[in-house]
Formats: sequence, C-alpha cells, structure tokens
Amino acid sequence: MRRIIFASKNEGKVEEVRYIFNDLKLEIISLSDVDFKGEIIESGNTFEENAMIKAAEIYDKYKIEVIADDSGLVVEQLNGEPGIYSARYAGSFAKDRENNEKLLNKLKSFPEPHRAKYFCAAVYFKGKEKYSAPGEVEGVIINEERGSMGFGYDPLFIPDGYDKTMAELEYGIKNKISHRYNAFSKLKNILRSNTD
Amino acid sequence: MRRIIFASKNEGKVEEVRYIFNDLKLEIISLSDVDFKGEIIESGNTFEENAMIKAAEIYDKYKIEVIADDSGLVVEQLNGEPGIYSARYAGSFAKDRENNEKLLNKLKSFPEPHRAKYFCAAVYFKGKEKYSAPGEVEGVIINEERGSMGFGYDPLFIPDGYDKTMAELEYGIKNKISHRYNAFSKLKNILRSNTD
Repeated sequence: MRRIIFASKNEGKVEEVRYIFNDLKLEIISLSDVDFKGEIIESGNTFEENAMIKAAEIYDKYKIEVIADDSGLVVEQLNGEPGIYSARYAGSFAKDRENNEKLLNKLKSFPEPHRAKYFCAAVYFKGKEKYSAPGEVEGVIINEERGSMGFGYDPLFIPDGYDKTMAELEYGIKNKISHRYNAFSKLKNILRSNTD
Repeated sequence: MRRIIFASKNEGKVEEVRYIFNDLKLEIISLSDVDFKGEIIESGNTFEENAMIKAAEIYDKYKIEVIADDSGLVVEQLNGEPGIYSARYAGSFAKDRENNEKLLNKLKSFPEPHRAKYFCAAVYFKGKEKYSAPGEVEGVIINEERGSMGFGYDPLFIPDGYDKTMAELEYGIKNKISHRYNAFSKLKNILRSNTD
C-alpha cells in the first residue's frame, strides 16, 4: 500500500489525521514509526512556514510523500498569542498543563468572553510539488479545564455552536469541526490524485 | 460560471492553459481581460517563487482565485541559462527572435547535442491556500529555427521522442507533452475540488 509520512510525533495529531484520511487507500506513518530521532527547528514566522520546514526536512531524508501541519491557538485579547508558540508557550519542553496554566494566568486580567481560534496550516510536500491549506475553528477560552480527551488547549476551548470543550466533545464530532479537519480535508484531493 | 484569473498577458500561454482546462466548468480570464496595467516585478530566484509572486499580487488586487506560471528553458551546456530569464534573455523587452539568436550564439562553441529542458512551475493561489507543481519536457536545442507555431524558444526545441520542434508539432500534440501541460495538469484536481 502507498505510504505517506505524517511529519509528527504527537500521537494525538497522528490519530486525528489517520481518522480524517481513513477513507483513502493510504498507510500514514508517523515520525515514531520511522524512528526519526532528529530535532526539527521550527524557525518560521507563520504556521505555514513551520509546516513547510518540517515537511521539507522529512522529505529530504526519506524521499517519500510527506504531509505535515503546524497548529496553534490564536487568542484575540493576547494579540494572537500563543500562536506559533502554542506547543512551547510555557517553555521548550512544556507540558499541556503548563501551557494551559500560563494561558489562564495571562487571561485573568481580561473580561470574558476570551475569543479565540484554533488555526492549522496543513501541507503536502513532494519535492517541487507543494500544497498548503489553512483550517480554523472559532470559539472561546474558558477559565478552567474541562474534559480529558484531545490534547493541547482542548480542555479550555469551546467551539462556537457547542457547549462542550474540545476535550469533552465526542471524537467523531471534534474531528468534523476541528481546525485540523478543515485544513487536512483540503489535502484529500491531492492525496487522491497523486497515485504514482 | 466560476471565474479564475490566469496571471498572464501572454496570449500564447493563455490559449495553452485554456486548452488544458477545457474540460472543466471554468472561465479562465487573463490579465488583458481584466485590463491589468501594472508591472509585476519577478524578483524571485526560482520559477516557483516568480509564479507565486505573480499569483499573490493578482490575488491581492482582484480577490478571486488565481493560477499562474513561470516557465523557461534550462540548457545544460549553459549551466541552466536562460532559466528564469528566458523571456528577457536578450533584454527587458526582447522579442522571441532576439532571445533565440542570443541562445544560438552562446551555443555555437559547444558540441551537439545541446541537451535542454523546458521547465514550468504552475501555481494556484487563493489567500492562504497555495499550491505549486513542476512540469518539464526534455529535449535538444537545434541550430536554426524551424516552425511557426508556439512562442518563445519553441522553434529551436525538439522534445525527446519527436523529430519536430515545438513550433512544428501539431497543437494537440504539443499540448499533451509540454512542460506547461505537465505542470497545469496537476492543478486540475485542485480546481475541480474548490467549488466555493
């Protein structure tokens, strides 16, 4: 079966992306599957640049089709923070809980609602063939964590139109409304068409 | 009908691209059709960068989907010249004939065959959604012009597997083997899928 690398070690992301592509005849392998040990420096200034940097580096190493993303939370009252630093908001090796705490501390002095969006840049990379698509979901940040599913800021984020956080929503629902779903869905037609 | 801008004023290119997409329900309009008077500075270092620069500038101005390309001839014995400078090899406002003459002069001191390829970077641009794909056709440069169709270096370029120049080949044949066909064909699935 055709194999594609998803340039991530985040098992939560890997699972989401496999779920999105489960109707395609593709084996999506992760960086853990290929035992990738390197460190990729995400030196870009945008989600898209960072996603492309990851994808290009992995393509150069393994020479098979790569998909990648860079995602994060963009909070209005914080002028877009944590943005591309979402995963390392409280430091290079910060855990989700530490990032969430930092976010709540920063938001303490602001009135509710804390409008925010989850943003994702999804990319496809195959040498000179490249594709990039955005996806987002809007919502609010609440003042304490709720729910145990998902990862990242999911326990703090309630998408518009729902009364549950991303960490409380049923998996099938989260994965039809998420920023990552919106972005990666646009990749599907490319994955379908590139069959060589 | 859905309208897309092809960011070019080159009527030869416009015709080729319309031919490639003639099975899609799309109206492809050119920069002449929108009466675009500006000058786009192709300041990139690669075909892809130049194509993206053109597409982004036109998208910013008209806010509808844009396709664009940057194409050129890459000659082995000339270390890749004329490359991204193909259209202005003999000067900013050079005519095809002047560019061709300059090429032949440069190649005089080299033995045949003069291996070359036509390269095309085709791009799709819709804000944060971007796509870029390469296309190429390999062949040789001959020592005098033959044929009156096409444009650019077509009268000097014989694609591998044929004994006619691009300017002698039947239109339907040229447009199934050309660099531009190869690149823009990859765009078709994106144009098909983006229906909003």
